[in-house]
Amino acid sequence: VPSRPAELPDTRAAKPLLAVLGGERRDHPPMWMMRQAGRYLPEYRQLREEKGSFLSLVYDPEAAAEITLQPLERFPGLDAAILFSDILIVPFALGQNLTFISGEGPKLTPPLIDAALDDLTAYPARLDPIYETVRKVKQRLGDGKTLIGFSGSPWTVATYMIAGRGSRDQVEARRLAYADPKRFGEIVGRIEEASFDYLSGQIRAGVEAVQLFDSWAGSLSPAQFEQWVIAPTARLVKKLKARHRNVPVIGFPKGAGGKLGAYARETGVTAIGLDETVDPRWAARELPQDLPVQGNLDPLVLVAGGKALDKAVHSVLDAFADRPHIFNLGHGILPDTPIENVEQLIRKVKGGR
Amino acid sequence: VPSRPAELPDTRAAKPLLAVLGGERRDHPPMWMMRQAGRYLPEYRQLREEKGSFLSLVYDPEAAAEITLQPLERFPGLDAAILFSDILIVPFALGQNLTFISGEGPKLTPPLIDAALDDLTAYPARLDPIYETVRKVKQRLGDGKTLIGFSGSPWTVATYMIAGRGSRDQVEARRLAYADPKRFGEIVGRIEEASFDYLSGQIRAGVEAVQLFDSWAGSLSPAQFEQWVIAPTARLVKKLKARHRNVPVIGFPKGAGGKLGAYARETGVTAIGLDETVDPRWAARELPQDLPVQGNLDPLVLVAGGKALDKAVHSVLDAFADRPHIFNLGHGILPDTPIENVEQLIRKVKGGR
Repeated sequence: VPSRPAELPDTRAAKPLLAVLGGERRDHPPMWMMRQAGRYLPEYRQLREEKGSFLSLVYDPEAAAEITLQPLERFPGLDAAILFSDILIVPFALGQNLTFISGEGPKLTPPLIDAALDDLTAYPARLDPIYETVRKVKQRLGDGKTLIGFSGSPWTVATYMIAGRGSRDQVEARRLAYADPKRFGEIVGRIEEASFDYLSGQIRAGVEAVQLFDSWAGSLSPAQFEQWVIAPTARLVKKLKARHRNVPVIGFPKGAGGKLGAYARETGVTAIGLDETVDPRWAARELPQDLPVQGNLDPLVLVAGGKALDKAVHSVLDAFADRPHIFNLGHGILPDTPIENVEQLIRKVKGGR
Repeated sequence: VPSRPAELPDTRAAKPLLAVLGGERRDHPPMWMMRQAGRYLPEYRQLREEKGSFLSLVYDPEAAAEITLQPLERFPGLDAAILFSDILIVPFALGQNLTFISGEGPKLTPPLIDAALDDLTAYPARLDPIYETVRKVKQRLGDGKTLIGFSGSPWTVATYMIAGRGSRDQVEARRLAYADPKRFGEIVGRIEEASFDYLSGQIRAGVEAVQLFDSWAGSLSPAQFEQWVIAPTARLVKKLKARHRNVPVIGFPKGAGGKLGAYARETGVTAIGLDETVDPRWAARELPQDLPVQGNLDPLVLVAGGKALDKAVHSVLDAFADRPHIFNLGHGILPDTPIENVEQLIRKVKGGR
């Protein structure tokens, strides 16, 4: 793999996911699924019932480690575990209060639309239990499996911190970005620093790759995308690569559409995640030829199953046959996904291109 | 304009918007704004207060004609009026009950997730008042101004008919499309026919161009996009062009991202509308060189105003300087947009590239 030797960890030969992130093409692509540790699994639902709220599970390293490993125990074909946590741990560490109310989604108080950054008292210790989870998972991780850590991108985390919740088209954050770019830039900068510390901590604790979830990258105009997605991501990636030379960074700018090419070229990410709306044939033309891609099966076709699933899987495998490819969904697996459909998916992917 | 002479109406020289839809490039692009007849205008809010609900205004041809013309009376720089109506008039004519409850958005009953198409009784007469509005507007339309009609695309209308309301990520419709493509195809086909009749009726009554609003084009995987956006749109455009030779069709596949090129090449639309997330420089490379484009200022920068607005307007004008371009927003103007910002926008656009 001559294109990026400096980034290759020693373990790559034994770990298919790291090998592909290092630039290798494989006939049987490594795979994992976003939100693979989650509600579609009966064993997760049971633990959730026993132990209480989502956040109490995240903050219980023993439980969080168990949940992180559940999908790998059930599906030996998966090549990676992703840390069971949430992108809103960073705002929590920055001093907002975080609650997950059933049926309402997450709430962060006070929202920065009302409060100033300086009104918040940061609690970096709120990140420590997550690192403990990483260490516990790492001890129990099977041979050949990779542990992926993550954070939200500065832009996506900012949309929650400003609105105090998920918001339609991220309109509060987008308005603030136009109305007061200086204040907005300070918020993004603070998140960028905290995310760097958080990802660094995860890496020190044992994660072998990290993913930046930019769930709301899709709502920005191109100039704002350059300023608030590409630029902070590029700075964050640069700092991560400077400190942790061998750790690959997967960028996942969901909904970026026609701006994926710019993101791929300008952020410095090791690999790019594609959501399910991206046409793989178009992406194959638009993205740099040696860039590893991850994706992008429609989570809804995984719910549907049957021949439609086989056909869709084949189409993703086929489109990325010529480049380093990690098989994944276009976004998180849905809670009502039948287990047997996941088994069918894994058989199909592991059958090869 | 050698590329598409057969489509050029005779009035094009006098009507800048039709001239550009016919393939002409202009230094001072014609312009209109999506939802330009709407709540940001005090004269609209007043009429709404006097006359009652949104739907009662749509079904009062005298009021609807007045509202359609309000923005042109206030802003002489606008080059087109767009019919004041709603994309859900088609489901209403197909036999669903339609209500707009304040703060809740539109409701269609029974939703097709519960009911069969055959349970509905169609009322084509529900379209007649809209045609009357078109005739009234046409009588009063100023020289050089174009009247644009519209409908929703079959896919976008299907998402509302199936869920019975706006729905997060259009998940009900997308699920049905995978679970029962035959039934889903029948729904889309029925909407396609009704939309053809409806647009034909608008054209006979006097509209000079039509726009297909595909507000939810963004949520589909590429294969589903081909099947449920591109194919029905291509059939609809073909039938419209066969019956109404000179009437241009503007396609607006909001959120289509990297699939805009396929849409532009495969649907046969006369022009393509771009939402504000599209990078104009990318679009200029990706789209056929002679295809007129419409768009794509961020509605939020129009709320912000000031230098940010001037800069954003300049960037749109500049990116499309070399091709036929209709200036517009990337989607509807927001209710809290200051009137003086609209005046600033029009001065800037009419100042030329």
